[in-house]
Amino acid sequence: MSTPPDHAPAPARRDAEATRAAILKAARFLLARQAHADITLKAVADRAGVSPPLILKYFGNKDALFARVMSFDTDADDLLDAPLDDLGRHMVRHVLSSQRQRGADPLLRIAFAPLHGDHGDVLRANFRAQVTERLADRLTGPDAGLRAELAVAALVGLGVMYGIARGPHLRDTDAEAVVDRYAPAVQAQLTPGGRPTG
Amino acid sequence: MSTPPDHAPAPARRDAEATRAAILKAARFLLARQAHADITLKAVADRAGVSPPLILKYFGNKDALFARVMSFDTDADDLLDAPLDDLGRHMVRHVLSSQRQRGADPLLRIAFAPLHGDHGDVLRANFRAQVTERLADRLTGPDAGLRAELAVAALVGLGVMYGIARGPHLRDTDAEAVVDRYAPAVQAQLTPGGRPTG
Repeated sequence: MSTPPDHAPAPARRDAEATRAAILKAARFLLARQAHADITLKAVADRAGVSPPLILKYFGNKDALFARVMSFDTDADDLLDAPLDDLGRHMVRHVLSSQRQRGADPLLRIAFAPLHGDHGDVLRANFRAQVTERLADRLTGPDAGLRAELAVAALVGLGVMYGIARGPHLRDTDAEAVVDRYAPAVQAQLTPGGRPTG
Repeated sequence: MSTPPDHAPAPARRDAEATRAAILKAARFLLARQAHADITLKAVADRAGVSPPLILKYFGNKDALFARVMSFDTDADDLLDAPLDDLGRHMVRHVLSSQRQRGADPLLRIAFAPLHGDHGDVLRANFRAQVTERLADRLTGPDAGLRAELAVAALVGLGVMYGIARGPHLRDTDAEAVVDRYAPAVQAQLTPGGRPTG
């Protein structure tokens, strides 16, 4: 989304951009790991290495800041970046590697969507448009919308089991072995009955 | 866990029991729908029809109250109440019917487990002992612990998709049709390669 911030002096405009990026990155980091309501402006500020008033200066308020980090677009680009016949394996692998490398995954934020209020509604609408419906558009055959939601459900559950429930067997097993066991279930939603590769 | 409260006058001991039950029920209701940190004592009190100080009198503090509602035991009894060969279908059906009837499901609380602090650790330990390991104990063959976690992951994801992401296709589809599409993936973890019924 933006280049890494802190290196050497730079013009004021460049600093402002870097600061915005650092704030967004900090908010995204926190939002991927805990509920929106648990995150204070101060926590974002501390992580970004800025002051809370500076966040207000750049984003107006906490809600506006989080609106910016509530898009699933960039994450979905990576998640969906595979041919349909290999997409099940790719998506399971992507969730696992995101969890292992970043301690978060591209979909898990949806599990923290508040049930009431604009924040949750925005997150749900984005999730639908940018993840499930986008996946459904690639599927053929009956019930594509349902099948896309079920495939994504399986991935979200994997992220919850890994990152929140912290299932010890899941965390201790080689990622490719998990892919072997779990991806067929996801792929079965994408290409029911199996289809020739190609 | 306790009989329903509010009917007719009763002796003081009975009233105390009914009040405790009403408080636990209210806390469980709220905890199944939102993050622990979002729930105030006042919200529990309002829902239970008591005053916040009364909750403190009965349970000491908010954390102690929630420790009481953090067991998965009773829910797991129902979730796991089917022969192994039909358990995949039973569990998917149970998650869907719980969501449809109560707007919550027996496993979804784990998605709200805080990543830090005792509350999350208790919830995770209970989830493991009372749900995933209990299921693993019923499985035969290699990687039973992993397979149990993956089966439960798929169920948790289904609950998130239904109750939090609110996937419109999932919510609009007949439950048995969803069971037909999703349960085979769960069952494949329980009895890989399929096994004769009986």
